[in-house]
Amino acid sequence: MAASSSSSCDPQLDPNTANVRPPPAAGDGWYGVAHGCTRKLGMKICGFLQKNNSLDEKGRMVGAFSQKQQLVSELSDREHFRRTETDFSNLFARDLLPAKNGEEPTMQFLLEVMDILTTYVRKTFDRSTKVLDFHHPHQLLEGMEGFNLELSDQPESLEQILVDCRDTLKYGVRTGHPRFFNQLSTGLDIIGLAGEWLTSTANTNMFTYEIAPVFVLMEQLTLKKMREMIGWPNGEGDGLFSPGGAISNMYSVMIARYKYFPEVKTKGMSAAPRLVLFTSEHSHYSITKAGAALGFGKENVILLSTDERGRVIPADLEAKIIDAKQKGYVPLFVNATAGTTVYGAFDPINDIADICEKYNLWLHVDGAWGGGLLMSRKHRHKLNGVHRANSVTWNPHKMMGVPLQCSAILVREKGILQGCNSMCAGYLFQPDKQYDVTYDTGDKAIQCGRHVDIFKFWLMWKAKGTVGFEQHIDRCLELSEYLYNKIKNRPGYEMVFQGEPQHTNVCFWYIPPGMRNMPHGEERRERLHKVAPKIKAMMMEAGTTMVGYQPQGNKVNFFRMVISNHAATRSDIDFLIDEIERLGHDL
Amino acid sequence: MAASSSSSCDPQLDPNTANVRPPPAAGDGWYGVAHGCTRKLGMKICGFLQKNNSLDEKGRMVGAFSQKQQLVSELSDREHFRRTETDFSNLFARDLLPAKNGEEPTMQFLLEVMDILTTYVRKTFDRSTKVLDFHHPHQLLEGMEGFNLELSDQPESLEQILVDCRDTLKYGVRTGHPRFFNQLSTGLDIIGLAGEWLTSTANTNMFTYEIAPVFVLMEQLTLKKMREMIGWPNGEGDGLFSPGGAISNMYSVMIARYKYFPEVKTKGMSAAPRLVLFTSEHSHYSITKAGAALGFGKENVILLSTDERGRVIPADLEAKIIDAKQKGYVPLFVNATAGTTVYGAFDPINDIADICEKYNLWLHVDGAWGGGLLMSRKHRHKLNGVHRANSVTWNPHKMMGVPLQCSAILVREKGILQGCNSMCAGYLFQPDKQYDVTYDTGDKAIQCGRHVDIFKFWLMWKAKGTVGFEQHIDRCLELSEYLYNKIKNRPGYEMVFQGEPQHTNVCFWYIPPGMRNMPHGEERRERLHKVAPKIKAMMMEAGTTMVGYQPQGNKVNFFRMVISNHAATRSDIDFLIDEIERLGHDL
Repeated sequence: MAASSSSSCDPQLDPNTANVRPPPAAGDGWYGVAHGCTRKLGMKICGFLQKNNSLDEKGRMVGAFSQKQQLVSELSDREHFRRTETDFSNLFARDLLPAKNGEEPTMQFLLEVMDILTTYVRKTFDRSTKVLDFHHPHQLLEGMEGFNLELSDQPESLEQILVDCRDTLKYGVRTGHPRFFNQLSTGLDIIGLAGEWLTSTANTNMFTYEIAPVFVLMEQLTLKKMREMIGWPNGEGDGLFSPGGAISNMYSVMIARYKYFPEVKTKGMSAAPRLVLFTSEHSHYSITKAGAALGFGKENVILLSTDERGRVIPADLEAKIIDAKQKGYVPLFVNATAGTTVYGAFDPINDIADICEKYNLWLHVDGAWGGGLLMSRKHRHKLNGVHRANSVTWNPHKMMGVPLQCSAILVREKGILQGCNSMCAGYLFQPDKQYDVTYDTGDKAIQCGRHVDIFKFWLMWKAKGTVGFEQHIDRCLELSEYLYNKIKNRPGYEMVFQGEPQHTNVCFWYIPPGMRNMPHGEERRERLHKVAPKIKAMMMEAGTTMVGYQPQGNKVNFFRMVISNHAATRSDIDFLIDEIERLGHDL
Repeated sequence: MAASSSSSCDPQLDPNTANVRPPPAAGDGWYGVAHGCTRKLGMKICGFLQKNNSLDEKGRMVGAFSQKQQLVSELSDREHFRRTETDFSNLFARDLLPAKNGEEPTMQFLLEVMDILTTYVRKTFDRSTKVLDFHHPHQLLEGMEGFNLELSDQPESLEQILVDCRDTLKYGVRTGHPRFFNQLSTGLDIIGLAGEWLTSTANTNMFTYEIAPVFVLMEQLTLKKMREMIGWPNGEGDGLFSPGGAISNMYSVMIARYKYFPEVKTKGMSAAPRLVLFTSEHSHYSITKAGAALGFGKENVILLSTDERGRVIPADLEAKIIDAKQKGYVPLFVNATAGTTVYGAFDPINDIADICEKYNLWLHVDGAWGGGLLMSRKHRHKLNGVHRANSVTWNPHKMMGVPLQCSAILVREKGILQGCNSMCAGYLFQPDKQYDVTYDTGDKAIQCGRHVDIFKFWLMWKAKGTVGFEQHIDRCLELSEYLYNKIKNRPGYEMVFQGEPQHTNVCFWYIPPGMRNMPHGEERRERLHKVAPKIKAMMMEAGTTMVGYQPQGNKVNFFRMVISNHAATRSDIDFLIDEIERLGHDL
């Protein structure tokens, strides 16, 4: 067990002492102890004083000493559950609340956990801490110095549980570290974290107002604010928080189908003609996945060509709509991506909306990654036309730094989510409650129970204000501009696409010195394809930083740098570039 | 702001003091302060001593006083981030980490939040605390004494954020209260709570081993244990944790379709004949919802008749299969429920499995609610035959007391989840990593990012052992037996179905004294239909307890008592009955 901090509070003062080892007794009086001056003495003094207190020996003491005792006693009394030296090796889950006398061990256990977590939080922001301590799966499975992942029939002591908590964090990845750039979701927002802790403690479910009154209202108000940012009149419309962008996108396809072919809900896809969906070849795979899952079929998800920057070419959309109609298919749905996963490209929403209006198609905007830019007066123009969408996906857990999971599906037409998904399960959603049951959201969702994803986001919005999100977004985009300007003409770098990125995505190849004079051709391509994976593997082994790479179309593996981490600074960008050059120099 | 506990640690000792107001200075020396004897004095003493310490006035002090000072100083030094009297009204989110000098305010804020949460936890288990403090939506929306749900452009102080946290909990529902019986998911498990706090702090995503190495392995090992409990040879097979039982059930329908008609993935439902699904009229609505969403159509989800206890009648299944085939439809999938939502009925899995084998149909067992009984040697026989299922839904967040969300879809055939859902998104799941990429689970899921639901469950299993879950389940079933025996012959009670319940569901009508002599008929039915809602509304207004009610088929509203809360005791059952009688006496 790591050092458990001492404090006052002799457990004998507390009725719930059964499982808590008393702190070592002070063998002598105030002055004797005082001469010791060890790290534990403070606790010993308080323990001794309170022990005497509990034995009602107060009367035998006189003058200033007695007064001091009383003071320390009162100090300890205020913080009834300050951490004490607790022996967790003899405590088990069964000793915690609701067990009899479980309050003291419960509080000591939770305070110890909290100490582990706050230490982790502090280290996360400390650049001298590694981003990760990499091990291969077989290494972790074989067991690392007492960290055994196997589950057994018999309980482990709370001491082992605390060790497991520490080890879980030790062998994990610090996604909040200022040098973690690997995903679209990075950073550790303290308010969001506090919000998520509270959500876990409340441990309830979004499906009725009855058991989540506050959270249901917060969701409603927050969705309205988001719809206002989108630009729908008076923020009218509907929406839900879903378990992630892929599910939000799936919702959009479902409600589009319900809008045009409501009979599919009852009769299945055979009641509709052959329906086709359109999305860019650079869009997130979840649109195609939704097409496959919902019974459209992958081949009826038609991929649109993009320009060099990864943006949909509107003329290609129109040509493909016409082509589909000529084949007798029925175009239903167009997805425009606001912030593609790799390039960070924004499809031209207004041009696409024109075409959707012309052909009467559902327009969905997948703003999972780019939706956050709506909070910035400087950058929101990149989503111009978004108010013309029928539905929008927007993941605050990406660009806005909200802890995972936090994704919204927003819908312009009120009532259609309910119409699409309602099964009228009267046994779950009783109509005869004493409150206004239109606040019960369960039957709108494809889920039954639904995790509370709203609170952390609501709390962050309260704490930062809209302006706080705006500053965060502007800052991340400035940082990516800094990176772009730093490497665009730097020897050894090639940009994957030309011009300043629209989002924080900066895509580039690093060309090791030994390759810089190679003629372009297949041999160079093959060798370059291996550079990013090798550098990434070395980064992970070193644990210094993490950045993503991938191929795209006919382009070999390149780095995709993204910035959503509010802890990142220019020095971290510099560090990343130094690290790539250090690790890649001899490849 | 509620009373913030004091402790030692003058912030001047810490380098990060910029935003922290020093505690009120002690105006005079040790003896002067000591005579005050107020609750705040302990803090003042320490503050005074350390202030002197930081001013390096130590040398001016002599003898025992100096020694005492040193002791208290060392005590405080051990717990660097003990809570201090912090003025949060001048602190904002922007002052927290990663802000310069943000460490101290961050720690103080998190410790304050933790105090709010641990206080909530303690009160949750205290029967003198109300289960809820009910307000109508319009009341909460109008704002309750400083609790304003509206979001604004400008940030709020951290003091307001802490008030908001307290109010959110105040106006919420204590789902862990020993007298909260409203849902299948109840209780507040301390180990699970700690696990969820850690998960929030780690804030990562299950889709690759790269960023969730430990959690991915924990998921794999835990799913294997669950498959062993199901009885699949060597625990072989596949699975995932999903955002809830409805999504897990949706997975089962998707993979059944992929198994028999893999071309649907590419070509859509038009590539398949008219497929039909079978599930009981008592089953969860998510099967029908999945049928609607996935393109089968609600009317192709055929509801099976049940016996008086709510269990599928196997002969009815066979008759309906034959009927569907005669109509030229293709039976695909049968759902057997292990623990229905309302009656807690277990469908006869072996009989259903015989029929599925005979007609070559996919057998899914929806054990969202009843799956937990597999952990009990005494009760697992209720799921006899479950090893014959092709897929199983099992929600540890229900009967096993794991915090929400925690639901597993388990599949007997390895590789089919991947085959069904894979989109080969090379740009997200790179094949050329340095580790074994079969550990990357992302492409198996219909989600892309996936919340870490495993850790709390894994930690609970470690802490309780299999035997701990068994004891929990046996105890809940004993309690429901106690309730059943208490009311089955009690005046004023009618059971909805006869005989001892199979699960913890006890379904009953309470007949107020004034109705007991009414002749059976429509008038009595109408009046009885209103009794449960009225009692429930009064319960919620009183805040004393919560229990669910609903109609079912032609049965008017009745109470459905369920027990999954490990804090509940016989006295709580007695309390519920007393409360129903007290509130319903004059109806």
